Amino acid sequence: MPRLDLSADVVALTEQLVNIESVSHHEREIADAVEEALRALGHLQVSRHGHTIVARTDLGRAERVVIAGHLDTVPLNDNLPARREGDLLHGLGTCDMKGGDAVILKIAATVPEPNRDLTFILYEAEEVEEAHNGLNKLAASAPELMAGDFAILMEPSNAGVEAGCQGTIRVDVRTTGVRAHAARSWQGENAIHAAAGILNRLAGYEPRRPVIDGLTYHEGLNAVAIRGGVAGNVIPDACVVEVNHRFAPDRSEAEAEAFLREFFDGYDVVVTDSAPAALPGLHLPAAKAFLDAVGGEAHPKFGWTDVARFSGLGVPAVNFGPGDPLYAHKQDEQVPVEHIERCERLLRAWLGAGPDAGPDAGPEAGPGAAS
Amino acid sequence: MPRLDLSADVVALTEQLVNIESVSHHEREIADAVEEALRALGHLQVSRHGHTIVARTDLGRAERVVIAGHLDTVPLNDNLPARREGDLLHGLGTCDMKGGDAVILKIAATVPEPNRDLTFILYEAEEVEEAHNGLNKLAASAPELMAGDFAILMEPSNAGVEAGCQGTIRVDVRTTGVRAHAARSWQGENAIHAAAGILNRLAGYEPRRPVIDGLTYHEGLNAVAIRGGVAGNVIPDACVVEVNHRFAPDRSEAEAEAFLREFFDGYDVVVTDSAPAALPGLHLPAAKAFLDAVGGEAHPKFGWTDVARFSGLGVPAVNFGPGDPLYAHKQDEQVPVEHIERCERLLRAWLGAGPDAGPDAGPEAGPGAAS
Repeated sequence: MPRLDLSADVVALTEQLVNIESVSHHEREIADAVEEALRALGHLQVSRHGHTIVARTDLGRAERVVIAGHLDTVPLNDNLPARREGDLLHGLGTCDMKGGDAVILKIAATVPEPNRDLTFILYEAEEVEEAHNGLNKLAASAPELMAGDFAILMEPSNAGVEAGCQGTIRVDVRTTGVRAHAARSWQGENAIHAAAGILNRLAGYEPRRPVIDGLTYHEGLNAVAIRGGVAGNVIPDACVVEVNHRFAPDRSEAEAEAFLREFFDGYDVVVTDSAPAALPGLHLPAAKAFLDAVGGEAHPKFGWTDVARFSGLGVPAVNFGPGDPLYAHKQDEQVPVEHIERCERLLRAWLGAGPDAGPDAGPEAGPGAAS
Repeated sequence: MPRLDLSADVVALTEQLVNIESVSHHEREIADAVEEALRALGHLQVSRHGHTIVARTDLGRAERVVIAGHLDTVPLNDNLPARREGDLLHGLGTCDMKGGDAVILKIAATVPEPNRDLTFILYEAEEVEEAHNGLNKLAASAPELMAGDFAILMEPSNAGVEAGCQGTIRVDVRTTGVRAHAARSWQGENAIHAAAGILNRLAGYEPRRPVIDGLTYHEGLNAVAIRGGVAGNVIPDACVVEVNHRFAPDRSEAEAEAFLREFFDGYDVVVTDSAPAALPGLHLPAAKAFLDAVGGEAHPKFGWTDVARFSGLGVPAVNFGPGDPLYAHKQDEQVPVEHIERCERLLRAWLGAGPDAGPDAGPEAGPGAAS
């Protein structure tokens, strides 16, 4: 079993994590390593739930903050092992999101007495269907472990704060027609031609850009797939346009669905998938304090992230992690080393700890961590 | 090996042929049976080319007529064996086109001294790609066997004359865009939305209906498939509309292609498939004489058939076979018994022979045929 050396600096630790392959549904090895490293730290209560590891301080502080990151990656694309090149660390998971995981583990190992109680969650299966998501499972089986005054998700956010997230809803918009032989097409009714109306509406869509807590969101409405056709000599009797709507956090899923039903009025609309938006919650004291501590400026999060799961439990949450999200899921995935270091530094300071003095400097490097 | 009894009446012979399963690429058995039955008739010169059988009279007549039918069927669909029900014969191949094949075999067996020399062609692989088509192969390897003053293809035509055929051309019409994450769709360019323009043009298409040799053709332009999409969270960068154009015989393939390029001007157009139309040729003496003999009225053929191969060799050709083409390729394929009998009767008369007197009535029932 690979072991993690939590006394390494945060960039070297990122590299260690990247080099433990952990494509979704294959997180056992990395979860074992994370569990072993965290259990070796005396000041944390550690529990395991599938391949999701939870570690908590219990210092009786006035506030509790949850810091979470997923351990899995999208499939391998000839981009392992990690490769350091100047100021960049390249490789699968560097950006999404083992740089963030490394920050979590460093804080866990080197800030034994934070000014806020901490709950660290390193979870499985974020990159696959909802049903497998470790945070989703934890919210169902042990929601008390996700409770807190504030949550930080270490999703790539250019080492800045991206607040809230837009919701997402997918619908199939369908047309139907009548099959006929293509040689006698006037005996049929072409369902693909009928889809012109759907595409015309999409092409004419004007996005809303609502301002919430000072952040400007930007909605989207797009065909993400289209399919139709029976055979090369048959007038098709069905066409389906798969549409994805991204909606700002001032709308609920039900409101987003109502908008789509009105937008595609006259067509058959079936909802296939939906996840709520998360309000940024930057007016809440815990979020405000965090924002002040790490530099003051927040940006809206456009992509859906697991912050919405915390919002759903009533916990304000932000994204704050190393890496440019544009590199997530790319063959040339990469993270600027400076982002990882910056996230660690700002979190340490906010939690009332000084800069990490490096290997063997403190009581926090337990025997398991120094392997 | 199943054997054919050519002394049976034409409907019973159809049933025999239907019950020898002969899905495309599996014609060996039926071709063996046809070859054996024809070789047993002393008055014909028989040759075999793959699973295509050619049988010819050589009486030094002033005219030669080619009569052709394919031996294969589309795949089985729980519709064998043949089943006679009142005036209908049901089953795979009854309509397309073993009723016609039975007529050919009856004429071959019972009209030993036709007033025109005859070439019978029973060929393989009409229902699959061009490259396998037995008539196509024969046109390449032994075009002299397809030569004649006139050709009759026994494709289902409601036992009437359907002249010429429309051509067919398929093109892919493509749009391209720029991929982006669906959460930040404004960074991309949606290729499916761009296909609205293609579908709008298709929806607004007005078909030509040219009159040729007194027959009114009816063109068609249809999307037969559409596809696009990368993933549920990605703005798609490509969309392809597969378009099938059926064009009347007053246009060449090149003219049809030029029409499509102009119609879709501004889009990427790639020709994927094309087959020429066939002019009806009803003004030619041999065709005129046939039409007069079998009842006078011809209809235009909308679907593409192998008559175009004869046209390509300079041989005027018509479709004239039992069965409603709407039942071809259907699970409930069927043919009216009367159609088969009518085709045989009209052909016999045109060829100068009296009505068939039935089994054992003439010298034409050779030893092989009476098995």
